[in-house]
Amino acid sequence: MKIGIVGLGLMGGSLGLALKKISKKYNLLGFDHNPSHTRDALRLKLVDAITEDFQDIKACDVIILTVPVDAIISIAQTLTDISGHCTIIDFGSSKEKISNAIPQTVRKNFVTSHPMTGTEKFGPTAAIEALYDEKTMVICDIEKSGDFQKGVALTIFKDINAKIVFMDAKEHDRHAAFISHMPHAVSYALAKSVMGQEDPKSILALAGGGFKDMSRIAKSSPKMWEDIFRQNKTNLLHSLEHFNKELARCQEFIENEQWDELHDWMAEANSLHDIL
Amino acid sequence: MKIGIVGLGLMGGSLGLALKKISKKYNLLGFDHNPSHTRDALRLKLVDAITEDFQDIKACDVIILTVPVDAIISIAQTLTDISGHCTIIDFGSSKEKISNAIPQTVRKNFVTSHPMTGTEKFGPTAAIEALYDEKTMVICDIEKSGDFQKGVALTIFKDINAKIVFMDAKEHDRHAAFISHMPHAVSYALAKSVMGQEDPKSILALAGGGFKDMSRIAKSSPKMWEDIFRQNKTNLLHSLEHFNKELARCQEFIENEQWDELHDWMAEANSLHDIL
Repeated sequence: MKIGIVGLGLMGGSLGLALKKISKKYNLLGFDHNPSHTRDALRLKLVDAITEDFQDIKACDVIILTVPVDAIISIAQTLTDISGHCTIIDFGSSKEKISNAIPQTVRKNFVTSHPMTGTEKFGPTAAIEALYDEKTMVICDIEKSGDFQKGVALTIFKDINAKIVFMDAKEHDRHAAFISHMPHAVSYALAKSVMGQEDPKSILALAGGGFKDMSRIAKSSPKMWEDIFRQNKTNLLHSLEHFNKELARCQEFIENEQWDELHDWMAEANSLHDIL
Repeated sequence: MKIGIVGLGLMGGSLGLALKKISKKYNLLGFDHNPSHTRDALRLKLVDAITEDFQDIKACDVIILTVPVDAIISIAQTLTDISGHCTIIDFGSSKEKISNAIPQTVRKNFVTSHPMTGTEKFGPTAAIEALYDEKTMVICDIEKSGDFQKGVALTIFKDINAKIVFMDAKEHDRHAAFISHMPHAVSYALAKSVMGQEDPKSILALAGGGFKDMSRIAKSSPKMWEDIFRQNKTNLLHSLEHFNKELARCQEFIENEQWDELHDWMAEANSLHDIL
């Protein structure tokens, strides 16, 4: 099975490593606009070969789009002439705009998905073989995909040992805002608030595990996250409102020295522990 | 050397494990108001023996206070009759109020410190041997400690392989607000904002590493953090103001679709990477 991976960064590169480890049945062809990415991808053996001709990608059995969300939408428009048996999988972090932007003539070729995994690092050198192992893969609007394509996608996802969750794209975007997009905004703001102080180095000298964990995703790619924030603007602003309301309550309790109320509020947050 | 550990939770228990591993020169006596804590501490061999009589603790060469910050201040008031050669070390997360509340007659006996380490877990069962290994230990207002006590504390801290930083208590509290206390408030608010949604389980089913890292410290002890927030109220509110300002800028960029400005703001947050 010939798989074309478009975008050889953390997500595409890690997928290449995982597929190459699992089975010799996959023949991987890489494509990336950035020449240093394609060089790195070959050197690190993330794919078997590289092409500069997008027609070679179009001729693959499976095309995986692991590029920023705006690029996924642009590329989808150019794929109207692919074979009826081609399966196209995108890994975009926001799903409704992508799902709706896929040209109707090839809508059944697409299985639009979102792997709930990643690191703050990016580029081919960030690729790790176990990125998808036992991680959740959300497949959205599956009723719009062809049965054949659904089967191909599920086989690949099973091969990389992902845990499958089916979800409506609209619902995914609401959930992803709370679980991923808003936390990224919060982490960026946390990093900025420390970096904006007079002597951030002295402050950061005291950083323990808590701060390191909370600021880790503030190192993520601005290009990638700018696109996600744009595509999921409404849900993101909605989830930020909820976050702000909670933080404002906390602040009010502290200002008014309502320590019992603060304690109860924290204990309620602790209940997260029962689920996660 | 006889060391009395008052408070056999994560911090006190981990210190016991570390000291017992390193050298037989330390004889560890534990004290805790909670009978299940003392039982667990003995079973897990966090200390060599337990006492229910606080006079036994007062007779130790070294007393380590690993209890919540308000309790440190109360206990300090009861230690005015200790020997002139006794060294008292507290591990409180806020330092100015503690440093100032130590009775003057025993001020030189105290070495008031803050280990920049921890986990979200608490109680004796949370204790881990390597908790202090290569972690920063901030010693505050060292000029107020006796030379002998300073020497004893530095030996112990060296034995557990901590990295020593000296700092004024006031400055420590300003820095700790940014690096630890405010991030805890943010993490609690993040957890609360998700738990307050209609179906938190469906949302949390999508949680990847980013959310898990950012909500981890929201599982921390409300009792412990209520006290810290109370003691460091002013600095905490000040750091929350800075955080809110940054998050509001992010929100404004998204609302007004100022994507270039958002991109630059994120790229500035990325600069954290150069230091941490």
